[in-house]
Amino acid sequence: MAKDTVTAALILIGDEILSGRTKDKNLGYIADTLTGLAIELREVRVVADIEADIVDAVNAVRGRYDYVFTTGGIGPTHDDITADSVAKAFGVGIDFHPDAVAMLRERYGDAEINEARMRMARIPDGGELIPNSVSWAPGFKVDNVFVMAGVPKIMQSMLDVVAPKLERGKPLLSETVPAYVGEGDLAAGLARAQDTYPDVAIGSYPFEDGGRYGSNIVLRCKDRERLMQARAVVEKVVADAGTSDTAKAWS
Amino acid sequence: MAKDTVTAALILIGDEILSGRTKDKNLGYIADTLTGLAIELREVRVVADIEADIVDAVNAVRGRYDYVFTTGGIGPTHDDITADSVAKAFGVGIDFHPDAVAMLRERYGDAEINEARMRMARIPDGGELIPNSVSWAPGFKVDNVFVMAGVPKIMQSMLDVVAPKLERGKPLLSETVPAYVGEGDLAAGLARAQDTYPDVAIGSYPFEDGGRYGSNIVLRCKDRERLMQARAVVEKVVADAGTSDTAKAWS
Repeated sequence: MAKDTVTAALILIGDEILSGRTKDKNLGYIADTLTGLAIELREVRVVADIEADIVDAVNAVRGRYDYVFTTGGIGPTHDDITADSVAKAFGVGIDFHPDAVAMLRERYGDAEINEARMRMARIPDGGELIPNSVSWAPGFKVDNVFVMAGVPKIMQSMLDVVAPKLERGKPLLSETVPAYVGEGDLAAGLARAQDTYPDVAIGSYPFEDGGRYGSNIVLRCKDRERLMQARAVVEKVVADAGTSDTAKAWS
Repeated sequence: MAKDTVTAALILIGDEILSGRTKDKNLGYIADTLTGLAIELREVRVVADIEADIVDAVNAVRGRYDYVFTTGGIGPTHDDITADSVAKAFGVGIDFHPDAVAMLRERYGDAEINEARMRMARIPDGGELIPNSVSWAPGFKVDNVFVMAGVPKIMQSMLDVVAPKLERGKPLLSETVPAYVGEGDLAAGLARAQDTYPDVAIGSYPFEDGGRYGSNIVLRCKDRERLMQARAVVEKVVADAGTSDTAKAWS
């Protein structure tokens, strides 16, 4: 029987994200993709290129969620330690995977293949390859952990391969009610709506739009009827609040 | 005596980041700011608006790093549960802070102040306020945990207040050597450079720049002399690799 809810965690691996040198673009992309697949991303961690940190993060989340995705650290250089770290997290060996070796030999040819590039064919025992059409160097899957590249284009190519094979939950439907009023003028009504519809997640996200302030009220639920009932209640809360001077600024 | 290394963790709080609805802009900004302050960001977590998740994340990192920063969940609506969660993480009570009450009364006046907005004055016992000039609703500091807003402009205003008071480490100096060659042609030389300079962190970050591929080799060390020695070695590795056909694509 299909599960109602399928969950995931994401681990972004790389010193460069923590130092600010690289601005991560994978979190938002993966979050959107998983939401589109009706898989709920429940937790994200960003960790450094340190084996113990990667091992700890993988082991902390892989038992808690249906899927774990990682990005980064699977290239040919000495600072690419994700494959070894994932092998260690699972307590398995790591060796050259014949199919990965073949992919890299085809990609680079005899002239360019070398020991460093061949490192990208080292896959934890039992791992299944995740091919990609951009760099050809594969990611891999061990149990419920999907190990992908850090370069967004390459990661996206891998996610395209992985996505169709993932189990999906029942979609979380979403409705947004914009309000041009301070959140504080909506809060009491929203709290009552949330109490009445505990099965609908109601969130308030303040925005500024060209000097005009307001808040998007986002409702999420797997049942369309309940969602639309709650939406009607929230619309009344927003209408009753009108617009206020407070909407000249936040909250 | 000043510490050589000051460390930090960051917790981004909010369902909307995990769903992809909001694309986080705080991680990169805070990472850059901390690097500029010679504070090393070692770990980031993104967690949902769920009390247990926030409590667990705060308690997992607050003993491991010198500072913890959080963003999100301190507004006036029912889904803003960060203050209560942080109080719970520390096992302390939470109540209206007189200075926060005064700030909010001044900001909103009698006409606009209400119970919801007053919620933003609830601060865990022992907490010190972090004022901000954008929304006036304060963040707060409990022990080594700095609780800030999720709206980037407001968070940045709070970080401006906090930054001058933070202890700083010895700056991590950074040099970048660009290479227009596949990483795989540099990897052996870089690994040898890393072995020779274990005190210099050497990372390789592939890029694509208008169809031209290459990799930025980033060296980081607190000692300028060692850094520049390692840089010279890396420059030779890059020069010896020349440019290769592989630079037409990744790795």
